[in-house]
Amino acid sequence: MHKTKIRVVEDALDANNTIARANRDDFDRGAVTVVNLMSAPGAGKTSLLERTVANLGELRVGVLEGDVQGSIDADRLASLHVPVTQINTDPGFGGECHLDANMVRSAIPALPLESIDLLVIENVGNLVCPAEFRVGEDVRVMVSSVTEGEDKPLKYPLMFRTCELILVNKIDLLPHLDFDLERFLHNLDKVSPGAEKMLVSARTGEGVEEWREWLMRTAQRAAAPA
Amino acid sequence: MHKTKIRVVEDALDANNTIARANRDDFDRGAVTVVNLMSAPGAGKTSLLERTVANLGELRVGVLEGDVQGSIDADRLASLHVPVTQINTDPGFGGECHLDANMVRSAIPALPLESIDLLVIENVGNLVCPAEFRVGEDVRVMVSSVTEGEDKPLKYPLMFRTCELILVNKIDLLPHLDFDLERFLHNLDKVSPGAEKMLVSARTGEGVEEWREWLMRTAQRAAAPA
Repeated sequence: MHKTKIRVVEDALDANNTIARANRDDFDRGAVTVVNLMSAPGAGKTSLLERTVANLGELRVGVLEGDVQGSIDADRLASLHVPVTQINTDPGFGGECHLDANMVRSAIPALPLESIDLLVIENVGNLVCPAEFRVGEDVRVMVSSVTEGEDKPLKYPLMFRTCELILVNKIDLLPHLDFDLERFLHNLDKVSPGAEKMLVSARTGEGVEEWREWLMRTAQRAAAPA
Repeated sequence: MHKTKIRVVEDALDANNTIARANRDDFDRGAVTVVNLMSAPGAGKTSLLERTVANLGELRVGVLEGDVQGSIDADRLASLHVPVTQINTDPGFGGECHLDANMVRSAIPALPLESIDLLVIENVGNLVCPAEFRVGEDVRVMVSSVTEGEDKPLKYPLMFRTCELILVNKIDLLPHLDFDLERFLHNLDKVSPGAEKMLVSARTGEGVEEWREWLMRTAQRAAAPA
């Protein structure tokens, strides 16, 4: 008798991961590279995207915007003539603090996957739960603002560890802060040794070109046949 | 026949509220006024407490520190000779993004309720879920940093609405930001008309005396027989 063993699913995140893989298949079929962009509230995800999306060369970009309520960020980005799709998490239990794979799945029919090469998913502002839920992304990027203090990698290690790139934002404010950049980078290296990072300012545009190039390289790499 | 009707509990938060009331009874027995202090990561809760706890007159203060991991903030406050108790939320599902009533309950045996008048519960940095879970507090206070942008009340309305006091922090940075304070206050008023607010800087100490006085008044009011 042939016996098949089914491992009992113990991980509460397994259902999420199953849906994330289905999302990933859909994105792959559309040849769309997906970035999951995360940060604390007010770290500058949207401002950075405003600086980024209009200047990506031939790369066609779309945005999936996650917010508890409203469409402030989606409206800002849509005004740049980028296709934007909004997910609001407030129909959930008092307002969900993160996107999960199923929420992204529910948005897929509304996404113009045939006419974009890169989808940036702007997650809900939060340094804890967004890091726990894969949504079908190719890469994870976080924005960490220098106004938040040097200790953040130590306090939210999973978030810093899970991201392929850390954008250290608001560096135009460094002269006005007590923020010790060396100490921050040391803390980052402690929780995520060798993590790739870039110093940027969404306000002045400093470092943004490097981030754009990173995005274009990442999209090319993902699009190349394995 | 006397009939007693039991309403079926439908609210998933009811269990939390039941425990919160038990916490509240314990705090009341100890005549301790409890402040639930919330904010986004890096808004300055701990820095503000450092400025506050050492100068509260005869009011004896203790801190219950909530973090996903580590004891960085607890260590900072303990160095000021304030009794500090640490809760780490990382044994939860991938790290809980908020304190709930049961976590606070588990810390009560370790709290010096007999020798303090005021307990400040420093919640996990997050603008969504902490607002959804009562923990047995008398009042809720949030710290909103001007570096986070004017739109935050509109994006996280429950947090702004649920708090008795909004501390608008880092106002020393206003000259270096594009932040429009009038617009922020307008947005705050939209989601929480008439909300009490104070402009403070944990860095320079500006406005902190007013916040200390608020705390002392609140503790006196809570201690007065009804």
